[in-house]
Amino acid sequence: MKNRILLLCTLLCVFLFKEAGAAPELKYVDGTTLTQINKVHPTTKPYSRLEVAKYPDLSKTVRKYYSHSTGVALVFRTDSRTLAARWTTVGNKASTHYSALAQQGMDLYIKQDGKWVFAGIARPQHGDTHAATIVKNMPEGMKECLLYLPLFDEVKSLEIGIDDNAHIEAAENPFRHKIVVIGSSITHGVGAGRPGMAYPAQLERGTGFEFVNLGASGQCKMEQFFAHVAADCETDAFLFDSFSNPSAQMINERLEAFVKTIREAHPDTPLIFLQTEVRESRNFDEKIRKFEDDKRAASEAGMKKLLKTDRNIYFINPGMPLGDDHEATVDGVHPSDLGYARMLEEIQPKIVKILKKYDIR
Amino acid sequence: MKNRILLLCTLLCVFLFKEAGAAPELKYVDGTTLTQINKVHPTTKPYSRLEVAKYPDLSKTVRKYYSHSTGVALVFRTDSRTLAARWTTVGNKASTHYSALAQQGMDLYIKQDGKWVFAGIARPQHGDTHAATIVKNMPEGMKECLLYLPLFDEVKSLEIGIDDNAHIEAAENPFRHKIVVIGSSITHGVGAGRPGMAYPAQLERGTGFEFVNLGASGQCKMEQFFAHVAADCETDAFLFDSFSNPSAQMINERLEAFVKTIREAHPDTPLIFLQTEVRESRNFDEKIRKFEDDKRAASEAGMKKLLKTDRNIYFINPGMPLGDDHEATVDGVHPSDLGYARMLEEIQPKIVKILKKYDIR
Repeated sequence: MKNRILLLCTLLCVFLFKEAGAAPELKYVDGTTLTQINKVHPTTKPYSRLEVAKYPDLSKTVRKYYSHSTGVALVFRTDSRTLAARWTTVGNKASTHYSALAQQGMDLYIKQDGKWVFAGIARPQHGDTHAATIVKNMPEGMKECLLYLPLFDEVKSLEIGIDDNAHIEAAENPFRHKIVVIGSSITHGVGAGRPGMAYPAQLERGTGFEFVNLGASGQCKMEQFFAHVAADCETDAFLFDSFSNPSAQMINERLEAFVKTIREAHPDTPLIFLQTEVRESRNFDEKIRKFEDDKRAASEAGMKKLLKTDRNIYFINPGMPLGDDHEATVDGVHPSDLGYARMLEEIQPKIVKILKKYDIR
Repeated sequence: MKNRILLLCTLLCVFLFKEAGAAPELKYVDGTTLTQINKVHPTTKPYSRLEVAKYPDLSKTVRKYYSHSTGVALVFRTDSRTLAARWTTVGNKASTHYSALAQQGMDLYIKQDGKWVFAGIARPQHGDTHAATIVKNMPEGMKECLLYLPLFDEVKSLEIGIDDNAHIEAAENPFRHKIVVIGSSITHGVGAGRPGMAYPAQLERGTGFEFVNLGASGQCKMEQFFAHVAADCETDAFLFDSFSNPSAQMINERLEAFVKTIREAHPDTPLIFLQTEVRESRNFDEKIRKFEDDKRAASEAGMKKLLKTDRNIYFINPGMPLGDDHEATVDGVHPSDLGYARMLEEIQPKIVKILKKYDIR
């Protein structure tokens, strides 16, 4: 009788384990054994986007944000029919205007007929210890995989799960050149449905060029420490979303010095500035409307001056066109996936055209 | 000295109170004194979309979901320059693939030149007691307002804050006719950035017709209790997203009986069925691919049969076209705001064309 109960319990456990989605026959490999892309240098904390210790003048908030895995992706090849992940985060406070999936989750793309095709998400749990099956029942054969890490948290550990009889290996970086993007929450990815929908990640898949995401939500007011980070980057071009966070006065006071510091390190590197969006939060708020109009006017005036003296500086204006139905933001400020799509439709060809002049193609 | 400290403390309090966004000079009115739209009948719980007690055969989950304020909106007129809200929810578990803003938050539209224009969000707090300034610094004059309530929680209480010297009054329902939408999470609004972006709410603003949202995430498998709810609705037309949740077998077994029950109560009312989407979760998962292909084939076969015998039944196929870049869902299943926009671009004109035949214009 005892044996029967034991057998029944064992069978029940096996059944429940299978139903829970994480098949028991998976084996896990450490994420650090795979290739990391979209970074300017290796980091001590394995999945951070920047080695923040190199920049002692960073503000506390930017230091925290640059420890996030924002924009970082793993690339690997595997013949597994299942892909899963176990990961831990440090516990950034949950947001109210974007999802936990964007904050602490991941999304996977697999190459198909030369294109990166969405394959699945790694859905986070509440808390900081996460486990998820990303995709299963895949056809046999080798797959080239691109896994975007969380946008708004620091990843402490990450393991990739594959079928017990399968192989996994680091792949070469599939993207050419390197473009560093420095910007606001819009670059950081607020409003994107999942990590791979942040606009630098979309630009990467759309152009084939590597984009490094150095967006810092609410922070990018052209302080000198951002210029110091930029000066230190080895990159083929810069893209700046630097007019979203500062006031008109800050733009007037800081833009020239910001560019000067970068130009001392990178005399000829193309610097592409995006005009900020026309915020939907201004639709009825006259104070925001004035603040935003002044800001965009200051950007225009500042850029006009710079464009006269430096032929490797570019200004894309409008830099974040969101359409005219007022429906493409999540909260009046941050584009939704609809807003990012509208923005990219307009600016991606312009960015590609500029980069082509520098043989970035 | 004591008096000075008291004065300083008072000034500090006033300053902090002002900075917190909720201006102290607001007065609050109970939301139940304003007009509620997008419901088929009044409810005992003031902000629920349906009187669930009327339908004893509802499943426990659907009973819970139909107590949500999904799709419900308040309409009112006010000359206030500020709009704020204080509200409480019952504490639905936070999701991981959509935001708290969609779950427990609200969004406001104001009529401008005959169009509903996004004006602001009521951002929820963590927990169940929420307070937010929705928009401030508005121009003077009367405004016609449309406030969408939370998509995935039950609203227990709701107060609207206006300037102390302002007036607020219930407005007449600005939408004509009534169309009841019964469906899955896609109708419920999973993946929408905020309540007003759920597709029935978008259809409402886009067509001028009132849409009642009876989407129930993961639940709509054409059980008879959904047909009983539909039979009981006084409505000019039905829109069904009833092929997203069931299996092919369920469609084969239940579609005819589902329609039969509705037809007994509504012999000639137009019944518009939307084919379900081609899920992005099928891109690499062969098992999901087969399940979904079978499901869509069963819908097509079932609808073909019904269309032969009932000239007031319509089938929009594809009913949820999401484009061909595989980028328009949040998680492989639920459209993002991008997916909903693509879907509506195709199906809204078709729905309008069908309704026109019934003088719904």
